[in-house]
Amino acid sequence: MRAAVLRGGDIVVADVPAPVPAAGQVLVKTLCCGICGSDLHYAKHAPHMVELSKRIPGRLPLDLSRDVVFGHEFCGEVLDYGPGAERKFKPGTLVCSMPVIPQADGHRTVGYSNDFPGGYGEQMVLAEPLLLEVPNGLSAEHAALTEPLAVGIHAVEKAALQENDAPLVVGCGPVGLAAIVGLRLKGIHPIIAADFSPKRRELAVKMGADIVIDPKLESPYAKLTPGKRAVIFECVGVPGLLQQVFEAAPRDARIVVAGVCMEPDRIEPLFGIVKELSLQFVLGYTPDEFARCLRLLAEGQVEADALITGKVGLAEVKGAFEELANPERHTKILVEPWR
Amino acid sequence: MRAAVLRGGDIVVADVPAPVPAAGQVLVKTLCCGICGSDLHYAKHAPHMVELSKRIPGRLPLDLSRDVVFGHEFCGEVLDYGPGAERKFKPGTLVCSMPVIPQADGHRTVGYSNDFPGGYGEQMVLAEPLLLEVPNGLSAEHAALTEPLAVGIHAVEKAALQENDAPLVVGCGPVGLAAIVGLRLKGIHPIIAADFSPKRRELAVKMGADIVIDPKLESPYAKLTPGKRAVIFECVGVPGLLQQVFEAAPRDARIVVAGVCMEPDRIEPLFGIVKELSLQFVLGYTPDEFARCLRLLAEGQVEADALITGKVGLAEVKGAFEELANPERHTKILVEPWR
Repeated sequence: MRAAVLRGGDIVVADVPAPVPAAGQVLVKTLCCGICGSDLHYAKHAPHMVELSKRIPGRLPLDLSRDVVFGHEFCGEVLDYGPGAERKFKPGTLVCSMPVIPQADGHRTVGYSNDFPGGYGEQMVLAEPLLLEVPNGLSAEHAALTEPLAVGIHAVEKAALQENDAPLVVGCGPVGLAAIVGLRLKGIHPIIAADFSPKRRELAVKMGADIVIDPKLESPYAKLTPGKRAVIFECVGVPGLLQQVFEAAPRDARIVVAGVCMEPDRIEPLFGIVKELSLQFVLGYTPDEFARCLRLLAEGQVEADALITGKVGLAEVKGAFEELANPERHTKILVEPWR
Repeated sequence: MRAAVLRGGDIVVADVPAPVPAAGQVLVKTLCCGICGSDLHYAKHAPHMVELSKRIPGRLPLDLSRDVVFGHEFCGEVLDYGPGAERKFKPGTLVCSMPVIPQADGHRTVGYSNDFPGGYGEQMVLAEPLLLEVPNGLSAEHAALTEPLAVGIHAVEKAALQENDAPLVVGCGPVGLAAIVGLRLKGIHPIIAADFSPKRRELAVKMGADIVIDPKLESPYAKLTPGKRAVIFECVGVPGLLQQVFEAAPRDARIVVAGVCMEPDRIEPLFGIVKELSLQFVLGYTPDEFARCLRLLAEGQVEADALITGKVGLAEVKGAFEELANPERHTKILVEPWR
């Protein structure tokens, strides 16, 4: 099959072997797949990421001498099943799935595995028990937003918000925007959101932010209601950001670290100490949260169209990686491998 | 009065003006005062600490061109009162107090202030409303342990432990030992404690640890009951320690940062992210916790004698700072300025 492949540190279009569904697995045709910031980062820092994986027990590091097909935010169409499958969904059914393949020795992540190509390829193998049918009428494009939406919804769940909390979302990329949706659905207001980009602030309002701030002009922390516990969603994930939050956060603030900073970072713990800050690092989502996000999209509770800023074929993936650096132009670019 | 003074980066014995109690304040004679690890650190890195204080809103930085008398873990005897005081306790009454002087523009910390000398001086001024009478029969030496005990008790309170949690105390200095006492009083077992020093491990057992580990020989994390949420008390407070905990902690662990690391630190957030770790930085204690600790000591619920490893006069403070580096010899050294 055709795929956009990480090969020798570059993203190239190539013919790779189509995946073959094993027992309990399903073969799907990729209809579309979002490009995630983590993919950009991984492509840029692959050797470092492999070294990091080796140091985290239970993580299977990628073999960079072999191809990797990224893409974990996908929607597909059922093609065929492996042996002994339940065949719950007819061929042609639109499906989503958490990008997870359970295996005897742990699990693999579709799109971050040498063996399970992700949605930047024409076909994928998924785990049948994790398949969710896309509710009738929801487009594949919108369904593909389930995964990034679930990341933000999960962050909001892990925040363990109390009624009187004052939320602030720092960074309005896809994760921050999804967190804003989660906060809106929780009914906790005002939702303050900060981003340097006017376009991103506009999107933040569309997703449900009540107050948007350009941090170049004023401090979003100054907008937090004094006396309320601040719950700060760090949705940027670059070195230095956490320390910035440490310095600006009010006393007793809860910081939910949803930005995935993959590099070493420098903090001054004393700021956390004197303010008795708490941090909750978050990653991924639960199966329930994932399923809920697909329903939210199907119910039209998320302005999905506003988030999708481009669609590209495989040949354009490499360029899209570069274009995503511009927050004015792009939020979510979908790859359509069949183009 | 005579005092051990931080002057020009050194600890010297000197005559300094005795403090004068203002309205609502009480003058006490210092009976004894524990040397805290923070004092050692401050003495060593005073200019850095001043710079840090300047960057933390609400903190009044010390003026290092003026004298500073350390000492915030004290027990004293009432001498006299400032104007308009309630005079609740007769002169001669043994008292403890949080080392806090409320002021219109915030508060000052006794022992970390140019204006309120701490317990390394013969006399102190304290806030009358914060005075606690030492319950009848409790020695001044034991009463002086109230403050460091409260630090550990507070850390345990902030841990928000649940019945089925698996606690691990990393570092069995005074803070770690106090945390062990707090855990024992909560009745959460087994309490695992780790320290390189045999003496400190022995003390950990005396305070209530069920399992003590020499991290040079085995990983304390391996002793955590799988399936239970690990609650790790970081009671060391040196750069690199947090990253060590990040790497070794099991998934979903809660880390209570009670060690006061005053230098910048390096972490790799990805370890926190993939394990969805949570952190709670803690500092100090509430008035209730402080009062409770004094009662605990008076009730004999803490093996106080085991913690006190030395008593020194003012001339020996400087030497004691150096001796405290040896965990085999010392845990808590008390300064007796009247000697």
